[in-house]
Amino acid sequence: MEKINIKEKLSKFGKNWHPHQIAVVDNMQVILVKLKGEFVWHSHDDEDELFQVIKGTLYMQFRDRTEVVNEGEIIVVPKGVAHNPCTKNDEEVHVLLFEKLTTAHTGNITHKLTQTEYPKI
Amino acid sequence: MEKINIKEKLSKFGKNWHPHQIAVVDNMQVILVKLKGEFVWHSHDDEDELFQVIKGTLYMQFRDRTEVVNEGEIIVVPKGVAHNPCTKNDEEVHVLLFEKLTTAHTGNITHKLTQTEYPKI
Repeated sequence: MEKINIKEKLSKFGKNWHPHQIAVVDNMQVILVKLKGEFVWHSHDDEDELFQVIKGTLYMQFRDRTEVVNEGEIIVVPKGVAHNPCTKNDEEVHVLLFEKLTTAHTGNITHKLTQTEYPKI
Repeated sequence: MEKINIKEKLSKFGKNWHPHQIAVVDNMQVILVKLKGEFVWHSHDDEDELFQVIKGTLYMQFRDRTEVVNEGEIIVVPKGVAHNPCTKNDEEVHVLLFEKLTTAHTGNITHKLTQTEYPKI
């Protein structure tokens, strides 16, 4: 029941594409990730995934279009929808995610970026 | 799958203590509320409740202490814990909440501020 400062938590890690858990709300978790470059195409069969941009501009690629999500904006990717987050111009983008505790960040694929454990910070 | 701008959504309503739903993520919802003054003591038997301060300073009262939550900070109130959010100095505070779709904002009590339907904006 202590408050959590998002920027202070972001200062605790540097590695890109590496989720860190900052809170749990029922069966969901709040995670922070620093994004840079392109991730990997994937989908989540059983989980929606909410992205809130804390810093920078997130380009959420879908198969038919790209949604540009700026600081202070949110996008929800519904279950089953292929997506691939990326950033542009070498920008490091900071994102907060709300998703089920069971959600794997690379979804239905295994990739060199796949992390099976998220550090709690 | 369109992005949601938090400040633009906040501009769509004015009434204090009136939750508005801006997104659904699996069995959870994202709501926005404008707070001013003091709410009401309550708890949620079966639901945790996450508060993220978008603007201003939230004073989250617990029975034994008050947590001061500023812009860019989060607090999770676990199920069963009595709490009463308030603001000070006549400040209107803007908060994003993440909680189950079933969560009643006044929890286990009915109060003149109780809303049973949250407008979707």
